[in-house]
Amino acid sequence: MAKDRKNAISPARSEDYPEWYQQVVKASDMAEKSAVRGCMVIKPWGYSVWENISRTLDDMFKATGVKNAYFPVFIPLRFLEKEAAHVEGFATECAVVTHHRLEKGADGKLVPAGELQEPLIVRPTSETIIGESFARWVSSYRDLPILMNQWANVVRWEMRPRVFLRTSEFLWQEGHTAHANADEAMERTRLMLDVYADLVENRLAMPVLRGKKTPAERFPGAVETLCVEAMMQDRKSLQAGTSHFLGQNFAKASGIQFQSAKGELEHAWTTSWGVSTRLVGGLIMSHGDDDGVVIPPRVAPAHVALMPMLKDAAKNAGVLEYTERVARELREVRYHGKNLIVEVDTRDIGGARGWDWVKKGVPLRAEIGPRDMAQDAVFLARRDAAPGEKKSMSRAELAAEVCALLDSIQARLFERALANREENTRRMDDKSEFYDYFTPGNLENPGIHGGYAMAHWCQDPRCEAQIKEDLSVTIRCVPFDQEREEGRCIFCGGKSHGRVVFDKSY
Amino acid sequence: MAKDRKNAISPARSEDYPEWYQQVVKASDMAEKSAVRGCMVIKPWGYSVWENISRTLDDMFKATGVKNAYFPVFIPLRFLEKEAAHVEGFATECAVVTHHRLEKGADGKLVPAGELQEPLIVRPTSETIIGESFARWVSSYRDLPILMNQWANVVRWEMRPRVFLRTSEFLWQEGHTAHANADEAMERTRLMLDVYADLVENRLAMPVLRGKKTPAERFPGAVETLCVEAMMQDRKSLQAGTSHFLGQNFAKASGIQFQSAKGELEHAWTTSWGVSTRLVGGLIMSHGDDDGVVIPPRVAPAHVALMPMLKDAAKNAGVLEYTERVARELREVRYHGKNLIVEVDTRDIGGARGWDWVKKGVPLRAEIGPRDMAQDAVFLARRDAAPGEKKSMSRAELAAEVCALLDSIQARLFERALANREENTRRMDDKSEFYDYFTPGNLENPGIHGGYAMAHWCQDPRCEAQIKEDLSVTIRCVPFDQEREEGRCIFCGGKSHGRVVFDKSY
Repeated sequence: MAKDRKNAISPARSEDYPEWYQQVVKASDMAEKSAVRGCMVIKPWGYSVWENISRTLDDMFKATGVKNAYFPVFIPLRFLEKEAAHVEGFATECAVVTHHRLEKGADGKLVPAGELQEPLIVRPTSETIIGESFARWVSSYRDLPILMNQWANVVRWEMRPRVFLRTSEFLWQEGHTAHANADEAMERTRLMLDVYADLVENRLAMPVLRGKKTPAERFPGAVETLCVEAMMQDRKSLQAGTSHFLGQNFAKASGIQFQSAKGELEHAWTTSWGVSTRLVGGLIMSHGDDDGVVIPPRVAPAHVALMPMLKDAAKNAGVLEYTERVARELREVRYHGKNLIVEVDTRDIGGARGWDWVKKGVPLRAEIGPRDMAQDAVFLARRDAAPGEKKSMSRAELAAEVCALLDSIQARLFERALANREENTRRMDDKSEFYDYFTPGNLENPGIHGGYAMAHWCQDPRCEAQIKEDLSVTIRCVPFDQEREEGRCIFCGGKSHGRVVFDKSY
Repeated sequence: MAKDRKNAISPARSEDYPEWYQQVVKASDMAEKSAVRGCMVIKPWGYSVWENISRTLDDMFKATGVKNAYFPVFIPLRFLEKEAAHVEGFATECAVVTHHRLEKGADGKLVPAGELQEPLIVRPTSETIIGESFARWVSSYRDLPILMNQWANVVRWEMRPRVFLRTSEFLWQEGHTAHANADEAMERTRLMLDVYADLVENRLAMPVLRGKKTPAERFPGAVETLCVEAMMQDRKSLQAGTSHFLGQNFAKASGIQFQSAKGELEHAWTTSWGVSTRLVGGLIMSHGDDDGVVIPPRVAPAHVALMPMLKDAAKNAGVLEYTERVARELREVRYHGKNLIVEVDTRDIGGARGWDWVKKGVPLRAEIGPRDMAQDAVFLARRDAAPGEKKSMSRAELAAEVCALLDSIQARLFERALANREENTRRMDDKSEFYDYFTPGNLENPGIHGGYAMAHWCQDPRCEAQIKEDLSVTIRCVPFDQEREEGRCIFCGGKSHGRVVFDKSY
């Protein structure tokens, strides 16, 4: 393929990253906007990635003793109101159910009827409704801990929706636990963050920073919010998962009380933690290139696409049979405990067929023509290489090497993403340098600027707020591995004992 | 155990079947009513059964070429209105979202704000919202068939809720397919019914009748509704799954059109099919006894509960170690492709421990005391036998026989349910016998009467409607294996060519 070939996706990332994202999602056939404002349709190729993520996570949760349950989608308004900071945090984005039937109005058109005595909120998160159950289930320290998770849809009304990243409805899991003491709850908060880091790094191939949020960035009602943050290719940060230590706030709001071993009545300590379908958006923005999505093999809906070249009628039957044989052999291969998923694509659509798989990001694709068959081989391309970079590989070698190939793609995606983060992380001590860093100005790459600024902060929320107002930059996290280092706040020059991570974010 | 022992559940099935159901669900800890009217909380033991059902079904669907996707939870009112019969069928049970935020009212209390221009309905089913997508995706016969499924929550406002059986919110899967011709769509409708019959009979151990609904009992908007019906222990029928041939009704409503191979513009033929968490209720009502739930091994959250007898402090450590060894060995056993799930219960709660597992319906439970350990054995009980029926079994024999034991429990549950159905199915040709059959009157067993009446029907909906009004009895299905037989309508004496199945139902 010529060097000056046209890319499959227009615009390129460097030209207009947000628009590139929309186009790359569209070209991959993973999801699309729906007719319902702010909601998306997750199409099979995208849903399958979410399925792989959720099944993996589900196993990880269960391995730590968590059990799945399911709580109502509706939250009575009075429940949401129990925790003041919580309701304030979600009030502006609540879908409110006010009626329970439809009836014909005066003009013959259907209108809402059967007004509810109390409005119901479609859950934006479930602390308050789950808290009501926990309060009924817990009476003694022997009833603790409770370790639960639910897979569910949630609704947070969104004025500027973007598929996967920010939608009015999204799919997620939300874990909720209750404990007899603060230490155990904090330990669980941290443990679940580790699970998320493991998932995001080792399955989605996205390196993450682990840390805690500043008070201003915490979950509404939380005492502490831990997070994993990943850098996208436009150098903005994506919050990939959060784990909240809720202290006794929600236990007090919901009345989760227990008799301690000493016989005293105490409020439980609770946690909650979640990741959502926005992870799929993060994956796309981390690894996609100017030809489309690139899916890490560990979460790919299919690992290999085989494309028989059926141009010579006399040889078609043989080529097809040979292709099916290759597919059968590959489907027997176990890759990290599961059989490989192999697609055989016989569509007669010319070169568009290969590009389709490139745009969908399947890790390996192979053309198989009469000549390949004669050599008992396939003509193989890796998605992480340039589209023209293909090589002949014998059938036997393919079956023997396919797992190593997939693992090497997985590793390379992680390394690239890590290199992107490292190249775009700067220690910064000068306010004007900091402001320049985050101010769009590079005319050759509009939209691409900034990155992680490791800077000192005096812990005054006013400095944080002014930076946010000036630059739309926030403290993404106070990293766990923060070194103690004396310094001066990047904004006000006040005393600081360590650096935090500033960036723009999704 | 003495013969005149008290049962674990009160009332017994024969005393008050509906109340028995509530008590048995409660005792099993599978689910409970929530604080939100009509909605349930599915607790881990119940959710795990649903998880086993849904994973099994998901594999079955995929084996027929179906792919998962996800569509919005909200349906704009104008979409629902597109199909006249459809909206009429659901209008009285719609949860309506009218606002998208909350704000403080004059009295400082939060009230709904941000009124929507068009109300959104929380999906009661998704034909109309999915139809909108299909219409955009289909343009040529080459785009067909589309075979999709989604796992989702749905809401149908319920005035008389009962956990699992009838709740305002429930979990389900809904399959939606579009085809280029009627035959193919009908074939898919039938195929998915077969999948449901396979699931319900071979996993839930519930024998089913397969057939089609009468026009009066069809899904709103369907041309044909196929169903699987199962008889509960109170002789009422439960619709366990439905598969709808929608003809071109929804394609016309949503504008799903394609260019045929001949170049003509045609409307697609669509199907939809679903089963829900009510299956869990059906399972409980099919197999439960006066001691609690009995869960068929193929969908059980755990297969074996081991209870070490820890009454002799000097021997406790040894007994525990021995129990863990038995657990380890059993967990290595593969049962229908998966490792056995074994619970070790060390709670110090006396006899309540064993009863707990009886009430939860775990297929096998074993006590292990110092004497069992000395004999390298366990003291085993099957859930399908009387609670006192226990026997010593050597450790080696248990590991070797456990799968056969579980399969024999599975088979026996099916046989019992089948026997119940056969004993309570009558061919009936006399109207007064028919009316007597369905009229409560047996004072010794109030609430237990009726069953399947195989009777002739002239196909006049007025006869069907009058029977329904008189007796609350409906035609559950016109069986596929209906024999052609000339007869007289059980109600009006008009001509009939075959028998249909009448019963009360859930």
